[in-house]
Formats: sequence, C-alpha cells, structure tokens
Amino acid sequence: MTDHATFLATLTGIVGDSYLIGPGGDFEPYVVDWRGRYHGSALAVVKPGSTQEVSAVVKACVAAGIAIVPQGGNTGMCGAATPLGDRDMIVLRLDRLNKIRSVSRLGDSIAVDAGCILADIQKAADDIDRLFPLSLGAEGSCQIGGNLSTNAGGTAVLRYGTTRELCLGLEVVMPNGEILDGMTALRKDSTSFDTKQLFIGAEGTLGIITGAVLKLFPKPRARAVAFVKLNSIDAVLDLLAQARTDLGDRLGAFEVMSRGQIDVIAENLPLVTIPFELDTPWYVLIELVDTLLSVDLNEAMETMLGNAYERELIADALVASSETQAATFWKIRHSVSEGSKAAGYVISHDSAVPLSQQATFVKQVEKRIAEYRPDARIVMHGHIGDGNIHVLAIIPGFKQDQKNEIAETILAINTIVDEETAALGGSISAEHGIGIANRERLGRVANPVELKLLRSVKAMLDPNDIMNPGKVLPAQ
Amino acid sequence: MTDHATFLATLTGIVGDSYLIGPGGDFEPYVVDWRGRYHGSALAVVKPGSTQEVSAVVKACVAAGIAIVPQGGNTGMCGAATPLGDRDMIVLRLDRLNKIRSVSRLGDSIAVDAGCILADIQKAADDIDRLFPLSLGAEGSCQIGGNLSTNAGGTAVLRYGTTRELCLGLEVVMPNGEILDGMTALRKDSTSFDTKQLFIGAEGTLGIITGAVLKLFPKPRARAVAFVKLNSIDAVLDLLAQARTDLGDRLGAFEVMSRGQIDVIAENLPLVTIPFELDTPWYVLIELVDTLLSVDLNEAMETMLGNAYERELIADALVASSETQAATFWKIRHSVSEGSKAAGYVISHDSAVPLSQQATFVKQVEKRIAEYRPDARIVMHGHIGDGNIHVLAIIPGFKQDQKNEIAETILAINTIVDEETAALGGSISAEHGIGIANRERLGRVANPVELKLLRSVKAMLDPNDIMNPGKVLPAQ
Repeated sequence: MTDHATFLATLTGIVGDSYLIGPGGDFEPYVVDWRGRYHGSALAVVKPGSTQEVSAVVKACVAAGIAIVPQGGNTGMCGAATPLGDRDMIVLRLDRLNKIRSVSRLGDSIAVDAGCILADIQKAADDIDRLFPLSLGAEGSCQIGGNLSTNAGGTAVLRYGTTRELCLGLEVVMPNGEILDGMTALRKDSTSFDTKQLFIGAEGTLGIITGAVLKLFPKPRARAVAFVKLNSIDAVLDLLAQARTDLGDRLGAFEVMSRGQIDVIAENLPLVTIPFELDTPWYVLIELVDTLLSVDLNEAMETMLGNAYERELIADALVASSETQAATFWKIRHSVSEGSKAAGYVISHDSAVPLSQQATFVKQVEKRIAEYRPDARIVMHGHIGDGNIHVLAIIPGFKQDQKNEIAETILAINTIVDEETAALGGSISAEHGIGIANRERLGRVANPVELKLLRSVKAMLDPNDIMNPGKVLPAQ
Repeated sequence: MTDHATFLATLTGIVGDSYLIGPGGDFEPYVVDWRGRYHGSALAVVKPGSTQEVSAVVKACVAAGIAIVPQGGNTGMCGAATPLGDRDMIVLRLDRLNKIRSVSRLGDSIAVDAGCILADIQKAADDIDRLFPLSLGAEGSCQIGGNLSTNAGGTAVLRYGTTRELCLGLEVVMPNGEILDGMTALRKDSTSFDTKQLFIGAEGTLGIITGAVLKLFPKPRARAVAFVKLNSIDAVLDLLAQARTDLGDRLGAFEVMSRGQIDVIAENLPLVTIPFELDTPWYVLIELVDTLLSVDLNEAMETMLGNAYERELIADALVASSETQAATFWKIRHSVSEGSKAAGYVISHDSAVPLSQQATFVKQVEKRIAEYRPDARIVMHGHIGDGNIHVLAIIPGFKQDQKNEIAETILAINTIVDEETAALGGSISAEHGIGIANRERLGRVANPVELKLLRSVKAMLDPNDIMNPGKVLPAQ
C-alpha cells in the first residue's frame, strides 16, 4: 500500500496536472448519478488521454490497492458509474478518449474511442451515408463506452439489435492493466469463444472499455408511421407476428402503450396532441423503414393493417399522411416519462420476458399490483417487439422526492414484478443494467449456477476487486 | 482414479446397456473425422438420453479423471470432435438429445436439444411459416450443438449473422457436471455480461451444449438472382457497398468467384452449365430476398446494376429470368469444391479480414503464393460480403491423398496466408473453427493477451482439463 499523496502524485505523473482533480477539487459532477439517487466520494477524478494512460492508471491503482470506477457520460440509470462504498477509489473519466479513429463505408464499420459521444458517432456515420442505429434519450451526452458497458437498448433494437449486437471489436484495459486489443472490423471469426463478450454488459467490473469497432447500416430512405388501436394485449402480440410475417425487417419500431399510459399524458401534458378517441385499452405505434424509395411503404402498411382489421385483430388504425403527423404520433410515445411523473410517484420497471410470455406477464403483474395497492395507476409502455415492456405503478398523491414515505410499497411492487419476471424466464433489466440499484434484486432472481459463473469470472479477471467494486454482483 | 471396468460400469448404469459402446465395439464412425484426416481412439462411446444423463456422465468422468470429447454429427472440418492424444477419453454423442422442445411463431423462436439435425430445425421453422436461416453443406447430418460449438457460418451470414448471432439462449453442462440452464427466448437482457457467449465457438472445451433457443425470421417470399462480371476485386467491393446502400437487407447473398475458380469447374465438371463467356477476372452471384411479394426485386436488381454499369463498375450482368436460371447460377457456386479437387491437391483456407482490407489481402496472397510456387493455380471464392474469402492453392499433378508428398508446400502456403491474415487484422478461421487442425496456426497468429485470456477461462472452468483436451488452444 502506498500513501495517498504518493499515489496521487503517481497519477498526476501519468495524466498531467490538468487532468487530475484531487482533494479539495469539485467532485460533484462525478460522484453523483444523474438521477441524483446516489451520492459517493472519491480520492480523485482522473482523465487519461490515451489507452496507454488508462493502462498506466490501472497499474498504479493495482499497486496501491485503490479501486477504480470507470465513468463515461454519467447518464446511467442504475448508479453503476458512481463511486460508492468505503473502499478508497478514484473515478476514471473517458472524456478525452473522444476520437473517431476511422470510418469505412466499404467495411460498413466505424472505429471509435470509448469516450465518443453517441450523437457524434451517429453523425460520423451519417456523413458517409450510413446509419449507426443505437438511439436513446441520452444520446447527446452518453458515451459509447458506457453504452457498451450496459449493453444499452433504446428504440432501434427490434430492427438492429442491442448494443452487444452492434459491436464488431473492442479494446479493453484489463484489471491488471494489460491492453486487450480487439479493434477489428471482422464480421466472422470462429477462433474459440468471443472474448469481447466478457466486457459488454459488465458495467466496468471486468475492465475498462477504451475503444470499439461498431457496425454501420444502409440508411433508410423511406418511412411510414401508423397508430393502431387494439382491444387486448393478445391482439397486440398477434399483430406483431403478422407485421413481422408480412413486412420483415421493414418493421423499424413496434411500440406499445396502454390506455392508462396515454391518459396520464392527456391529463398532464395539454400540449401533446392525441389525435384519436381513447376508447380501446391498447395502442401501438408502428414505423416501417426501407432503403428503397421505390417501395410504397404506406401501401404496405395499409395492406397489412387492412388484413388485420378483417381478421378483427385491430379496432382502428391511422396511417400518418405526412411527416408532421408522423412526428405527432411519436411525440405521444416520447411523452410517457413526463406524463407519468406528473401523475404521482412512479415505480418503474425494466423487465423483459420472452414474447410468448408477454401477455401472461402483463395480466399477472397488473392483477397482483392492483390487489396489493388498489389506488395505484398501473400503466405500461415499451418496446414490445423486443419483449421489453416498462410496467409503471403510479402512486397518486406522492411526488418523486417522497421515496422514503412509500418505501414499503416500492419494495412490495418490485417484488411482484421480479417474481413474475423470473417465473416467466425473463430479465429484470432489459436495457438499463444492474449497477448498484438492481444488484440485490438480481441476487433474488438470478439462476444460482449463472451467478456462480459471473462470480468466478470476476474473481479470475479481477482478483483484487479493483474494478468498480460493489456493482452488478449481489453481496455474498 | 477408478479402474476402467468400474468406470464403464458406472457409465452403463447412467445411460443403459444399449447406449454405451465399450471395448471391442465398432468405434470407427466416432473416432475418425469425416474428412478422414484424424484417427483417434476412445475407451467408450456413450450416448446419454437427457441433459441429466449428460451431467451424470460428466461427473463420472471428473471423478475418474477421464476426458470427454463431445460429438454431434461429426461433420466438422478441423477434427474438433475426434478423440486424439494419449489421455484416456470417451466420446459423448448427443444423438439422442434430438427433440424440438418448442417452437413459437409469436416469439419468433425455437427451443431445441443440441442433438437436433440442422435440417430438422429448418423444417420445424418452416412448418410455422418462419425461417431458421443457418444453412450449410452438412445440414442434413450436422447437429445444432456442433454448429453452435464452432460458431458455424454458411451462406446466410451476410443477411442473418453467424450461428452466434442466431442464438438467444443456451443450456450447457459445465465441466464439473453442473447444468447451466439458460433456455430463454429473451431478446434483451442487460444483467452483466452474456454468459452463454463463453460456450459458443469453444468447440466443447468449456462444457457441453445440450440445448439452445434460436431466433426465427419471417420467410422471404420473393427472390431475384443475378450473375455479374467485373474487372477487379476493388470493383467487387465497390459493388457490394453500392448494393448495400440501395438494397439494404434485401441483399441475401453476395458470393464471389475468381475466373480461375470457374475455369476449374468448366474444365472438370462438364455437366455444370456456364451460361456466359469467361472474359473478366471476377464474378459475383447476387441474391435478393424480400418478405413482400409486391416488391419487384428484378426491377430493383436491374436498377442497381444499371447504375453500376453506368459508373463502369461492372462489365456485364445477367439477371435470372426464371427459377431454373437462378438454380443454374447457384449450381456454379455450389460446384467450387468438386471442381477444385479434380484439378489437383487443394490447399484451402478459411480466412476472414475486415472488408476494407479485402482487396489488399487478395492481391498480397495471390502475389506471394505465385512467387513461392509458380505452378500453383490460385483460385478464390467465398462469402465476400462477410469478409470471408476462401483462397485455394491448387497444386496440379497431386491428388488429395498425397498430403505427405507436398507437406513443405502446404506449410509454406499456410504461413503466407496466415501472415497476411494477421497483418490485416483478420481471422484464420472465419467459419470452420480451430479444433486440432488449426491450433498451432492459431498459436502463431493469436494476440498474446487474448490467448492468455482464453487459457485463463479454460483453467478456471475446467481445471482438470476434462473437456476436449488438446483442442483449440495451442500447446504451451
């Protein structure tokens, strides 16, 4: 063990004076998560300027027995990037690793530093007439290293897959400081198992992602958007299967909202236009995309919906006749969080279950929450095409800062959702990760053999528990 | 350590008399790989009838210190399923785990035993109007567990991904006999890293895959096929980028052949029709697919090719006017192996390089082999859309059984291909795996940090080296 002053001097020697915030500095932006739920502390915040500097910092931390919390844009939902616990630790920011290393239209790939902002990557792809499809609320400030570390989801998963599926290659600084250089744009590789998969989704507990090679896609040139009214969740799922059969990968989005979800928007956000009667229990927003301008997507959408109407699968449908109307439809979908928060304390969830279990999940969860807490407004929205429906229990009369006053309700409702998720072979975290927020919940629902495997890999790669300790894995 | 008789009695107790072939039995089909290159021996061949029996067999082997070679359809290209070396070992066949467990049109997924024949899975998907896209030469006898263990490629990777990307869930018997039950059809899961990835591509060295949940896709209903003539490999790649831009995921196949490759077919297989002059150095077979019958794919193909012709990217093109003509085009592609073998001893390769490096790779390899062995016919074909081009050096005057007589040439040419592959950030095994055939080559080209990681995971999961010893990892 080294004393702190010596340790900090070592770090300063690596990154330079300007890139270390030491004792007495303004740590606030780095030790609190963006939702403001977790407040931590750190010995220092360090901003290395290269992969080699990251490696040197990690080696210094190993030598000094100091833990490391890697931090990208600090936009995570689960506190994974906040320094918590009583260990001595530093926050390692990736901001300065923000170069687009190369972009290839021929290779349909882009090589980036981990600290690149997601929106900058989207733009670099667009500049060569390609699409990087990962898209989520925080895209203007989140970093791709964080997206990879949490295997982020977003609105384009149905069509393009999760962040894991968008990654071709990875560069990682391992917990011993070694650099694993897997910055390749290879599409096919059958040389043993895929080592990069160990680091995607691991939330910085197994190493620090410093670079990535990502897949690019042809840019859609045409789109069609429709809003559909349905009488049951079973009909929603049946329509999804029909849409997949008829339209294939044109199906760019298939987003569901319950009537209650739209009600809270209509009640609380008068500027959001709801251009139809709310007279059925379920609503779906469908978006079709195509690279070929010559394909008439509105006609394809109308044909598919017409067939569904004849089968009495849908109650009604509105196909957007203009980009403005399409934007109106999407505005409703994008207003779910704001509308819900205005209606009471929101207990939200991020479960995914296999599509074939989705209807059972929705019905069971709604029934059990209603029994437990009859005054709760149970509303739902989500990427149902991915099996990921966000169940919200809104407790009227409570505000977002009254968490402690309804702690018992939160625990009880979490338990209901977790139990139903686990019973149906689902995941309690479809797209937000585990971090600190969900690790005890993970402990309750995880497959014990799998949990043991996660622990074994952690112990093997990081025997001194230097990398983001206390995150992801439940306490033993 | 147990004596062999007691050990075999234990195994018989687990699987029953009928499913153990012991000393004196006919081992031949199980101890020789299908190419006939590797001949091994085993104490016994055992055919468990359930995941639980697989687990019990593994535990018995651990207790007795006997190694296990898992074997599916025994159609592998690299000897991974052949019992080799001087350890006592058994062959564990998965044949009896051959049930389709469930299939869901709604969930777009199928849950299968590892011993299911690939063609049976394709058929079960087809029965519910869905596609399981994995397709390769051995599909009538290979088993899905083997496809997953080698991360098999095939002709549909461009459109649907490798076997790894087709897998949603996995059931694995670990090297200690524990069952890791990950048989879920989840599309999204952000709970730490994805443990199933440790077993996909590991060729049975880290456990035995006993079941899998696989993705299904909407069935294409329309297709168009064209044969295109081009003057350079650069033009081939430029055309690929153009086709992706214009046609998006309609691009179902983009298969390249060099003129020499078609020459050997024309010379040796007179029944294969070549319906055009061989007057350019490169040829591409393009297939477009779509779920929508209303899209005119021939028109889309012609428009794209017309633009390419105007840009002087292509020399000529023939769009198939009937299914018969489309089949004629594909017949040429499917005749590459037979045609090549008739022309001499074939030294073949399975390299992939990033698409942006493909032209350099092709030119360098051709130049260096020609310098080394001027009489070699260097021909090429492959899934160039995946970056996977098979380079064949055909040595005239030698037959397939004269391996030993040109051993020096084989080594020299392998070395050239490996060096160029590694220098361009490629993989020496795009789709065939490592097994025993390529493990020393892997040792020469592997990233040392990655190789150390592979070894660490192996040592952690299988400390007694019970699972398929001597495969994949180079000797130390």
